Amino acid sequence: MEILLDAENQIETWQEVTLVYNAALKQINTRLEILNDEFQHVHQYNPIEHIKSRIKTSESIVKKLKRHGYESTIENMVKYVNDIAGVRIICSFTSDIYRIAEMIRLQSDIHVIAVKDYIRVPKPSGYKSYHMLVTVPVFLSDRTVDVKVEIQIRTVAMDFWASLEHKINYKFEGNAPAHVKEELVECSRMVSDLDSRMQHLNEEIKALSAEKGE
Amino acid sequence: MEILLDAENQIETWQEVTLVYNAALKQINTRLEILNDEFQHVHQYNPIEHIKSRIKTSESIVKKLKRHGYESTIENMVKYVNDIAGVRIICSFTSDIYRIAEMIRLQSDIHVIAVKDYIRVPKPSGYKSYHMLVTVPVFLSDRTVDVKVEIQIRTVAMDFWASLEHKINYKFEGNAPAHVKEELVECSRMVSDLDSRMQHLNEEIKALSAEKGE
Amino acid sequence: MEILLDAENQIETWQEVTLVYNAALKQINTRLEILNDEFQHVHQYNPIEHIKSRIKTSESIVKKLKRHGYESTIENMVKYVNDIAGVRIICSFTSDIYRIAEMIRLQSDIHVIAVKDYIRVPKPSGYKSYHMLVTVPVFLSDRTVDVKVEIQIRTVAMDFWASLEHKINYKFEGNAPAHVKEELVECSRMVSDLDSRMQHLNEEIKALSAEKGE
Amino acid sequence: MEILLDAENQIETWQEVTLVYNAALKQINTRLEILNDEFQHVHQYNPIEHIKSRIKTSESIVKKLKRHGYESTIENMVKYVNDIAGVRIICSFTSDIYRIAEMIRLQSDIHVIAVKDYIRVPKPSGYKSYHMLVTVPVFLSDRTVDVKVEIQIRTVAMDFWASLEHKINYKFEGNAPAHVKEELVECSRMVSDLDSRMQHLNEEIKALSAEKGE
Repeated sequence: MEILLDAENQIETWQEVTLVYNAALKQINTRLEILNDEFQHVHQYNPIEHIKSRIKTSESIVKKLKRHGYESTIENMVKYVNDIAGVRIICSFTSDIYRIAEMIRLQSDIHVIAVKDYIRVPKPSGYKSYHMLVTVPVFLSDRTVDVKVEIQIRTVAMDFWASLEHKINYKFEGNAPAHVKEELVECSRMVSDLDSRMQHLNEEIKALSAEKGE
Repeated sequence: MEILLDAENQIETWQEVTLVYNAALKQINTRLEILNDEFQHVHQYNPIEHIKSRIKTSESIVKKLKRHGYESTIENMVKYVNDIAGVRIICSFTSDIYRIAEMIRLQSDIHVIAVKDYIRVPKPSGYKSYHMLVTVPVFLSDRTVDVKVEIQIRTVAMDFWASLEHKINYKFEGNAPAHVKEELVECSRMVSDLDSRMQHLNEEIKALSAEKGE
Repeated sequence: MEILLDAENQIETWQEVTLVYNAALKQINTRLEILNDEFQHVHQYNPIEHIKSRIKTSESIVKKLKRHGYESTIENMVKYVNDIAGVRIICSFTSDIYRIAEMIRLQSDIHVIAVKDYIRVPKPSGYKSYHMLVTVPVFLSDRTVDVKVEIQIRTVAMDFWASLEHKINYKFEGNAPAHVKEELVECSRMVSDLDSRMQHLNEEIKALSAEKGE
Repeated sequence: MEILLDAENQIETWQEVTLVYNAALKQINTRLEILNDEFQHVHQYNPIEHIKSRIKTSESIVKKLKRHGYESTIENMVKYVNDIAGVRIICSFTSDIYRIAEMIRLQSDIHVIAVKDYIRVPKPSGYKSYHMLVTVPVFLSDRTVDVKVEIQIRTVAMDFWASLEHKINYKFEGNAPAHVKEELVECSRMVSDLDSRMQHLNEEIKALSAEKGE
């Protein structure tokens, strides 16, 4: 998916890429901390368990451009690589995922460009996660740049599974033996079952508490 | 279990309790960071996913003393309450738990006072975790105090389960309806299955990589 | 100085004050970090030495309202107390102060409400610092609130002096003996001399480097 | 000065140097935080204003070895370069410097190898600072290594001066024009005057407070 951003014409060196995307990560992290604090204040409950963020290495970016048939220029990086800046939000329950996504969507200065719901429709590998591609304004000294950030939201159980899948993909370069792939799909089903049972239990408790008038 | 510590005679006010147990937490956290860095260096792998630590509130300490029939004195706190300072280490696989416990055990200045392996023998509630009660030397300006710290080590899946159980215990003050308790035990079984399947998969991959001569 | 802010009608409890002003501090800190990184990238030089921030305690806020004859309501706090959230920026040279102030002024979403330049016109006590009262938008889940933050910018030498003056004011409740006050004014003069000599030296070096064609 | 340390025979690669010296910095920082908290608790006063720490780059280490006529081996680095790990402690008053040095000296597991008091006897350049070379035990998984750390303690004013001197040395590679050097010496004298006046004022206030029976 091609997205036209002003950023293309304003970022000219790899140092500037690092500077601007790091700034975007800092802004998003601060924003999420504030939303989590507010949620805690209103609902006595933290929807966000923890957050990790990373800048893609220049090697991975160049690899990705090559795979899609693009030349390795700064312009192409900014234009075609959507996950240069990535944020991963880990939460307890699947329902938290949609709550957090909604909070992000309602932020008036953050624009949601694309959403991929791999929870409703998991990847064939068994991968489950909620992906949002957003832009966040970064205020530099002389201009404001809209920077793309990929946000992945998942439960702790999905994240545990995804770490192992990532390791396997890395070791076998995508060509894991069939029985390993099948076992992964089976584990993904167990993750879903666990997440679903735990969430029902959590909801039942809330309902029981409400009955008691709390 | 009663443990005789020099600390009893050296800590006299609640401010000193806070000071000394906070210092112990800082020491333990730094030590674990160093061990994790070393492990990463030697094995290209972080056994520790993340660490949380907390000081028990004075209210909880007083409650605990009362429950065990002790007067609320600073001396009794230091003598009988073993989890004033608590550290929770979260890791990916059950095998990591025993690896981390071993690393802690080998530290020459940390003394292991007691171990409870609720993974080999889970609590009837379904609770699983590896508990170590240790003392760590805290170097103050004019003396060194051995301070007790409770370390809990668990997988991400066990931790997820334990958070929900804690919430339920808190809401129902220990008297949750029978079907809620049963559902919790069932979820605990699913956690064990998932942890075990994921660990086997992880070991198989390591074996396959080793065969390929990596 | 009375400032009418939407915030007055939107903040109703002390918890909300804490939440919203803390969020403002986080936003400002992140913004300053980004500007400092950018400056470092462009000029190979960090204008900001370090940053401290604090929320005024409820006791201090109530005292201040009383001193000015206002009732202790949340509405009055938000309306009349301009330094509930305070940020202190410490830098090396006086010229950095004006550079940082300019960078803040140019941020399109930060509004500067008032400026007090106690460097050009020091207080009779000898106090020197550059004060800006700004508003920064805080994005909550359902609305955006413009929150007041007091920014103080000073050199390390001014900050050193101001810490001692603060301690003296606190100990003598504003009524320090005359010779203490005079000595403070004299020290403030020495701070100015030192800052000015050091800045000239710094500028001379830059000029000499430029001549050598660096 | 040659110091024989077990570390020589136990550290074999640059990665291990980084690992072990970083661990030493973490240990020292934690220790200083704890001492500062204790001091704050006992005296209602923080002697440490802030702390910076750094690992020397491999380039600087190699340069230093060459300058002293040593081959660039890991063994020589560990043996002859005493400031691979450096900690700088900044405080308000000169008297704090000696207080902090004393606290470090009293730590039973930290060994002081050498002290250079450039405050009592400043360098001809005007440089003032208190240097301690210490070893701190680093607990690895299978052994304990005594690691050298250079600790520099200075006032904020001395630190301000030292930053400018460092910049000048860097730009002119040690050969600054004579009038620049003289101006630096003059500024160093002003720093001493300011520090001394401020400290006297601080002591007078303490004495006055004591008289009032506080």
